[in-house]
Formats: sequence, C-alpha cells, structure tokens
Amino acid sequence: MADLIALDDARDERLRDYTDLRDVQLRTTVEQERGIYIAEGEKVIHRAVAAGHTPKSLLLAPRWLDNLSDVLEATDAPAYVLTEKAIEQVTGFHVHRGALAAMQRPQEREPREVLAAARRVLVAEDLVDHTNIGAIMRNAAALGFDAVLLSPRCADPLYRRSIKVAMGAVFSLPWARLDDWYGAPALLRELGFTTYAMTLADDAVSLEDVEPAERAAVIVGSEGPGLTEHWQREADHRVIIPMAAGIDSLNVAASTAIACWHFSRR
Amino acid sequence: MADLIALDDARDERLRDYTDLRDVQLRTTVEQERGIYIAEGEKVIHRAVAAGHTPKSLLLAPRWLDNLSDVLEATDAPAYVLTEKAIEQVTGFHVHRGALAAMQRPQEREPREVLAAARRVLVAEDLVDHTNIGAIMRNAAALGFDAVLLSPRCADPLYRRSIKVAMGAVFSLPWARLDDWYGAPALLRELGFTTYAMTLADDAVSLEDVEPAERAAVIVGSEGPGLTEHWQREADHRVIIPMAAGIDSLNVAASTAIACWHFSRR
Repeated sequence: MADLIALDDARDERLRDYTDLRDVQLRTTVEQERGIYIAEGEKVIHRAVAAGHTPKSLLLAPRWLDNLSDVLEATDAPAYVLTEKAIEQVTGFHVHRGALAAMQRPQEREPREVLAAARRVLVAEDLVDHTNIGAIMRNAAALGFDAVLLSPRCADPLYRRSIKVAMGAVFSLPWARLDDWYGAPALLRELGFTTYAMTLADDAVSLEDVEPAERAAVIVGSEGPGLTEHWQREADHRVIIPMAAGIDSLNVAASTAIACWHFSRR
Repeated sequence: MADLIALDDARDERLRDYTDLRDVQLRTTVEQERGIYIAEGEKVIHRAVAAGHTPKSLLLAPRWLDNLSDVLEATDAPAYVLTEKAIEQVTGFHVHRGALAAMQRPQEREPREVLAAARRVLVAEDLVDHTNIGAIMRNAAALGFDAVLLSPRCADPLYRRSIKVAMGAVFSLPWARLDDWYGAPALLRELGFTTYAMTLADDAVSLEDVEPAERAAVIVGSEGPGLTEHWQREADHRVIIPMAAGIDSLNVAASTAIACWHFSRR
C-alpha cells in the first residue's frame, strides 16, 4: 500500500520530480538524469502500470484517490496529496486530470531484441518533435507494426507530450534507440529486413506499387530536410507518396500513417 | 501603396483587430463578427494574398518591411509598424514571425458551387478542434481531393491555428460549410456522389476492399463519438480502417490521410 503523505508546501523537496513541467528543455534533461518519466492523468498511469512500469511516487489531488486505489494498493511508493491549486504551483500549470506519477524509466531495450520477432518495423530518423514521435508511434501501433527504431536525435517517447499524443502506444509497442545510426542499414539487412526509405525524390517508386517483403522496415525522416543522403543511398527501395501539384508535403505523421497502412495490408 | 503608420502605444484603438490572439474563444467570435481572419507570418500572408484575399491592415516589426514590400506596394491598407516588444503587448505572445495581417474574410462559398466539378470530396462532421481541421485540409489537398464540406459545428478553417497546421491548404482547396447538415446525404446523392462513411463499426467494409465510384464523398467524424447515427445510416457505404487489437483508434488526421490516399489512387 502506498504511503499517503499530505503536503501543503509546493516547495517541499520531495516534490522535486514534478517541478516546472512546462519547461521542455529542463524536463528532458532532468527526467533522463533521474531515470524517471511523468505519467499524466489517471488513464495514462493505469496504462503505465499495466505495462509493468513502477511508480517512484505519485502526486494527487484528493478526488483522485478513489480512481487510483488499485494502483495505490499495489505500490510502496509515496503518494503526495495536495490541493489542485498547490499542484498547479508545483508543476507550473493546471493539471486537468489532477493526477501525476513519476514513473521509473524502464531500461531501454536493445535494437536486436525488439527486432527479433518483428515483421513490420518503423524506423524514424531525427524526429525531434515530441508530438510527431507520439503520433508515429500511435499510427504504427494501430496499424499492426511490431516495433519502432529511433535515431539518436529523435525526441523522447516517454516525454509527457509524446505519451499523450501516442495514447499510451509507447508502452505497448516495443521500441529501441539505435546508438550506431550510421550502421543501421547494415544491421537491418543482417537481420533479414528489406528497407524502404520514404522520400520526396521524384524518381522513387510510388507507394502503391510496392510489394512489401516478408520482413520490411519503413524509414521516415524529418519533415524539412527529409531522410539523410546515407539512408537514401543505403535503403533497398526509395518510396514516394505521390502528391498533388503545388502542395509542399504531408506531415510526417500523415505520411507514416499512409505508409504503415500500405505495408500492414500486404 | 500601403500607408505605413508607426505606432508606439500597444493600446492604440487601431490595433483592436490584433488584441488577445491567444484567447481562442474571444477570437473565434471577434473575427467572425468583424469579417476578418489573421494571417500570421510572411509566408502565410503571401499565400493569402496570392489566393486573392485582401488585407484590411497589417501589423509589422520594422525588419519585415522588406520581405513584404510586394504586398505593401499592392495594397491601400494601413500597415502599423511597431517594435517586436510592442507587438507582443498587443497580441499577448511573442510573434516569432513578426508579421501579422488582418485579412478580409472572403465570402463563404456555396456547397453546390464547390461540389460542381469535384470528383473527390472530404466531408467533416463536428471536428471542433482547429488542429484537426487544419490537418485534414492539408491531407486532402496533398492527396488531390477537390473540395471539403464542413458541418455547422466544425472549427473555423480560417482561424490562425487551422491555417498554420494546414500549411495554407485552406486557401487553395475549395471548401464550404453546410447549413443543412441533416440534408447533406441527400444533397450529395442528388449531385451524383456516392458516399462513404468512415466508421469503427466492425460490420463495415474494409477500406482496402472499396472500389471508389467516379464521384466519391468520404465522410469523417469526430474522434470520440464518431459519425452520427444519421450518417451511419444514410451513407451508401460504411468503411473501416482495420486496426490492431487493443488500440483505441487512429486520430482523425491519420485516418483521413489513409482514406484520402486510398480514394486518390483509384
């Protein structure tokens, strides 16, 4: 059973994992350093626990004690109980769903492990935006992809905003970060994947004409510059989603949805 | 040539079209009442003017005068020149691209007019979120759809946030609002469209099995409740994007991208 601790001072040192939640730069550093991530709202907390993650502590307004009683009963972590107003002082904003948990960040998985049994893999290069990372993971999960690989510069899937946009898919869908990004094409080839680089190059093959291999990795890049030269060169196939004249492009979440849809149905 | 007017008082009455830009509720009312919309940033202003829209006034930091000289030369509207700091006082936030224009809101088009020559139409029911409206219009435009119809409760495509997300597609893609939403299925039928309601109902036909008619209207609903009963019943076909077990759903932007992709390639 969690230890319920009523606090009234927003500056209490025990609340340090919850301060300045709107400061993206600060939080991305702090959460990595302390080995935590923030689950926001009763639904996300439940999903995180169901995925086997462990709370380090919780921060709750009194009215959320009931809804989270199962989580509180199953943990030894402290649960700090504050008024909604005090929670706002701690976090720097009004927490609509007055419940937060500082979760212990699970050990990151190895690329080879998440790839072992996968048939359909989404590979993301340098998506630095948390919304985009959340959106592509939601899309990949919904369309039956088995795993996601991230380049070193991709945003953190366990950042609060990513989790929210992903609707919890970051808990259910296996993902790993590749330290050796340059070696990624070779690794995927070694493991038997055929690689498909999504590109805007007009000599690429149109998505509708792609007959996916048994094991397929779809690689998407950031919206502005697109995939690096290295990937454009190394991928087995370069694939384009043909677009109407005069339109810049689809955003990466939309093009990922379309690509995952095509690969999931073959 | 625009009349350049240097102002230093953020409370100047002539700046009233630009106040409190972050207050969504206030702005959505004010902009409709005054028959304006706000174009933010040099790029969007250029696109709006290229689409034939007329500035009522502009609000610029001095360093943007050069980039917008073509727009300033071609208009008789006043251009208020303020420091970036003063612009922040007027609008309530730091305008990254220190240029704004209050554009005269073009007269809304008639549904029959935008449908007249269309082959592929996206129909949106009660999408109240500006980001979603912007995203579906960007997707529809990129994938070659010819027009968009909106239900009365859909968010305003000319709201600042919608325009930003749509990357200007709200200017290029013909759209109209249907006052008689209940009569929409009959109207589309009368004009020769076959209607396809996107749904989560598990007895619907899978998108991949749909062979679109020559003239096709794809109807999407809001994320939570989905399409109303009326549409589910009245549409010629009910279509589902099959999803992996345990996943709630794709968001409406992603499912629209996939649906538009399928319909655009047949």
